[in-house]
Amino acid sequence: MDATALHSTKTAGKPIKCRAAVSRKAGEPLVIEEVMVAPPNSGEARIKIICTSLCYSDVTFLKLKDPPGCFPRILGHEAVGVVESIGDGVSELVEGDFVIPIFIPDCAECEDCTSKKSNLCSKFPFTVSPWMHDGSSRFSDLNGDTLYHFLFVSSFAEYTVVHVANLTKIDQSTPPNRACLLSCGVSTGAAWKSANVEAGSTVAIFGLGSIGLAVAEGARLCGAAKIIGIDVNPEKIEISKKFGVTDFVDSKNCGEKRVSQIVNEMTGGGADYCFECVGKASLVEEAYSCCRKGWGKTVVLGVDQPGSKLTFSSHEVLHRGKTLMGSLFGGLKPKSDIPILIQRYMDKELELDKFVTHEVGFEDINKAFDLLVVGKSLRCVIWMNK
Amino acid sequence: MDATALHSTKTAGKPIKCRAAVSRKAGEPLVIEEVMVAPPNSGEARIKIICTSLCYSDVTFLKLKDPPGCFPRILGHEAVGVVESIGDGVSELVEGDFVIPIFIPDCAECEDCTSKKSNLCSKFPFTVSPWMHDGSSRFSDLNGDTLYHFLFVSSFAEYTVVHVANLTKIDQSTPPNRACLLSCGVSTGAAWKSANVEAGSTVAIFGLGSIGLAVAEGARLCGAAKIIGIDVNPEKIEISKKFGVTDFVDSKNCGEKRVSQIVNEMTGGGADYCFECVGKASLVEEAYSCCRKGWGKTVVLGVDQPGSKLTFSSHEVLHRGKTLMGSLFGGLKPKSDIPILIQRYMDKELELDKFVTHEVGFEDINKAFDLLVVGKSLRCVIWMNK
Repeated sequence: MDATALHSTKTAGKPIKCRAAVSRKAGEPLVIEEVMVAPPNSGEARIKIICTSLCYSDVTFLKLKDPPGCFPRILGHEAVGVVESIGDGVSELVEGDFVIPIFIPDCAECEDCTSKKSNLCSKFPFTVSPWMHDGSSRFSDLNGDTLYHFLFVSSFAEYTVVHVANLTKIDQSTPPNRACLLSCGVSTGAAWKSANVEAGSTVAIFGLGSIGLAVAEGARLCGAAKIIGIDVNPEKIEISKKFGVTDFVDSKNCGEKRVSQIVNEMTGGGADYCFECVGKASLVEEAYSCCRKGWGKTVVLGVDQPGSKLTFSSHEVLHRGKTLMGSLFGGLKPKSDIPILIQRYMDKELELDKFVTHEVGFEDINKAFDLLVVGKSLRCVIWMNK
Repeated sequence: MDATALHSTKTAGKPIKCRAAVSRKAGEPLVIEEVMVAPPNSGEARIKIICTSLCYSDVTFLKLKDPPGCFPRILGHEAVGVVESIGDGVSELVEGDFVIPIFIPDCAECEDCTSKKSNLCSKFPFTVSPWMHDGSSRFSDLNGDTLYHFLFVSSFAEYTVVHVANLTKIDQSTPPNRACLLSCGVSTGAAWKSANVEAGSTVAIFGLGSIGLAVAEGARLCGAAKIIGIDVNPEKIEISKKFGVTDFVDSKNCGEKRVSQIVNEMTGGGADYCFECVGKASLVEEAYSCCRKGWGKTVVLGVDQPGSKLTFSSHEVLHRGKTLMGSLFGGLKPKSDIPILIQRYMDKELELDKFVTHEVGFEDINKAFDLLVVGKSLRCVIWMNK
């Protein structure tokens, strides 16, 4: 791909009129319309989106009538783009650079970003704010009304503005319709990396969407001996095998037993690592119940409704010596870990291709939603211009 | 001390009549009376107790009218003794060996005991059973009625029978009135070891009894920069300084603020490590609230009432990237970690002396209870024959 064809210095510093898929009302299809995208402010870059992919969080936020749901908004947070122009003070990117926008900021300066132990930037704390980090929007419709941002990315538009803390530069040779998956789903599933899954270990995965299957893919790469996939949809059995799942539990057909009891039986006392990839508090509790005493780790990756609570028995926590950890974006640090995942993809270890079940043009973006909601797709790549 | 004076092959294989402090009724003082101690069964050793010390769990179980409280029982689980005789199949100990009984079994054979990651033996699972591992008692009173065991130790007797899985051999040169503290309290507080407290880190300790102060002592050894002690008793301020506590929070005088808010303010966003050493679910939740986002670890060491629950916000778990771990016996493996702690004591690094605030003779064992209940003592050593 010729990067120079994708950007133009002629547009730098000026608003760009382009197409965006706007979420105007909760639960309704996106509306493709023309919008205005302001030039980047200080520390930001305006990005021409090459392709974007649909993650379940986009669906969740489209459905949310009340805050943090808000309308009209430009959703989308998995993408690859090329830098069209940069704002003041941006030194790490130049026009024409290929980038992945990532909802977790990585400012490279604060105590968290300079530590190897945290991926939760303190300078730009992660929120589900409808604004850029400075509390304003770069989008408006043709009536001049503000359009809200989403997760600091808003990739369902031909152009978007993203803070450099939310941009990771990638090599131009990386296929964009694979790299975009690393903006969220597959990277969140790369929690196998931060959880240090070991060769020979047993892994239980609650929920076999893209995050869960990315956990499986990673556990497979780590040499896990048994990878148990748990899902309400038995159609996941066949596809999950491709990602390394060795055993399947159909959670709607467990009879009298709880899923945790079945996993405890299958593993002879609990899985070494349990990953919750759905976003249901009750499943976190189930996962915790079937992680191995003494060393079992339960990793929470799924996003539940605001206000939901997790409840554990004090005695189980103390007497069973288990660990519970939350892991936003899989615990990965965008600017250092994403290039490693890309390299593993280029080396043909991490198999991203099989996550992409569908590809559509931008005008068919609502089809991508339909496919995901009914469980037909894992990742549908949406090309902005194809 | 002359070990040969402490045991006699003349008694091997026969019941021994000796004194014990028996808990006959919930909440009432112990009764020193003569009891019969059967010879050890296969895999067990009969131990002549040199000294024992009082831990708050003894008080808790003395007060418990209902199960797991039970009567008549011989309490006590911190001690040093000398092997009087061994049962069949015991190869790791001989008569005259000095030992520390430890309530956590370490069979050296099962998947957990052979793993570096777990201290929760699968062959002899930890319970608060009133029996030996085989479900029987070695104690009876002079009417022939059974007396119950406690935590596989029952050290409030001149002789007791303990399974070798619950015995760690120590060098005879180790002062018994210091080594006994490693049976429970100080070792549980050695969770700083399993939690990997680092130099320069901030540590918040909820509860400044022996466990909490042992955490402080360890954090001091690790070079923690700030060690915050939290207690309802402001008299702990002075004593806690000796253990490395640098800042004190009087939890009864926080005004409108929650303790977690104060700790968050004192640490600029949360302590790197929080230890709950009281055994109250609400304090675990407070501790979790003030451990640092991104890398904070909350370690549960205190034993709450059976049935108590811990509740956390799903979003705090996921979005704040914190870790919660339970740690019975501080996560230590008795047979490999206790000798390390003893060596650090002998090398004058780990200061055990300052935990011992009182020493009494066996006949004054109820004084030890009184001192601990009113918060006057940290550890009171009870000498069996002095």
